[in-house]
Amino acid sequence: MAEYIESLSNLAEKFGRLEGVGKKTAMRMAFSVLELDVEEAEDFARAILDAKEKIHLCPVCQNLTDRELCPICADEERDRSLICVVTDARTVLAMEKVREYRGTYHVLHGLISPMNGITPEQLKIKELLARVDTGEVGEVIVATNPTVEGEATAMYLSRLLQPFGVRVTRLAYGVPVGADLEYADEVTLYRALEGRRDVH
Amino acid sequence: MAEYIESLSNLAEKFGRLEGVGKKTAMRMAFSVLELDVEEAEDFARAILDAKEKIHLCPVCQNLTDRELCPICADEERDRSLICVVTDARTVLAMEKVREYRGTYHVLHGLISPMNGITPEQLKIKELLARVDTGEVGEVIVATNPTVEGEATAMYLSRLLQPFGVRVTRLAYGVPVGADLEYADEVTLYRALEGRRDVH
Repeated sequence: MAEYIESLSNLAEKFGRLEGVGKKTAMRMAFSVLELDVEEAEDFARAILDAKEKIHLCPVCQNLTDRELCPICADEERDRSLICVVTDARTVLAMEKVREYRGTYHVLHGLISPMNGITPEQLKIKELLARVDTGEVGEVIVATNPTVEGEATAMYLSRLLQPFGVRVTRLAYGVPVGADLEYADEVTLYRALEGRRDVH
Repeated sequence: MAEYIESLSNLAEKFGRLEGVGKKTAMRMAFSVLELDVEEAEDFARAILDAKEKIHLCPVCQNLTDRELCPICADEERDRSLICVVTDARTVLAMEKVREYRGTYHVLHGLISPMNGITPEQLKIKELLARVDTGEVGEVIVATNPTVEGEATAMYLSRLLQPFGVRVTRLAYGVPVGADLEYADEVTLYRALEGRRDVH
């Protein structure tokens, strides 16, 4: 039936291009659009164009922004001597939710992955080195995911950063808060044991 | 961070209005739109407006269509004496996948639900009665979901249809094909037992 309704299957196909949206979900969403008011649908279409048009990369940290500088780089109270290197803009979002980190970020927009043809040149590494090269940076926290590619990228960056004499750190490994030890994998448990701390 | 990028959180908010899309999924989708090409994003926006503009209800069966009559009602080979009454357009989609049903449909666009303030007047029941009233209909299969509301709507319809002298049927209850009897609920098992058939 939906195959007959060309504009519906066309819309579902567009939804299906978004990350993590399967065929069934895409069709459900397309049906869902039909239930919106005409104005809501118009707002939706405009929001897509707006986001595409207005959002670009912050010239300093390469994070997504719709202003000249992103609000974090523009914030005078953030500590510019501290840079947290993340894979993508979503990680910035997650880190900011913690509300404890007062440094700045640098968004790589990917991880080095020879398997997927992603080389260091395709990431925003040049821009990171330029920031460190100003001499204003004291520490770079590499907050890539604890995966093979995340680790490889972290190692690569740490070697690149060494000549600049900055401190390079990684996030701590360990058992997630609230997790059940019984279900933790061995590698995580090993890392948690290795990184154990004194109780004060 | 996303709160700062107004056009991004605005887009996420639009995705969040679609059925079954939570906050996190909506944000992931908004990020995903940024990764589309400009043309893809424009196509997406246009597809939303297109679907809203072109799709309306078939004047006969009340199913969604972008033509004058829906392709099923327009198909000369479909058996017009048989109407399968369904809750929504998605059920038509599911039924058509079976490829065995050669009758027509009637889409109610909801179920009677006093709890949610949905009365029979809000459904396309009047239109169903008009079709049956032509005298061309021999059987009405009520294919609403086997839920309280689906059952109540089926009972209501069967009482309404009685004076017209048409046969009113329900889909068979039973164990889903491929299911494990061990995990089937008691009501389903009871219904499956009650509806048992001779093996030929």
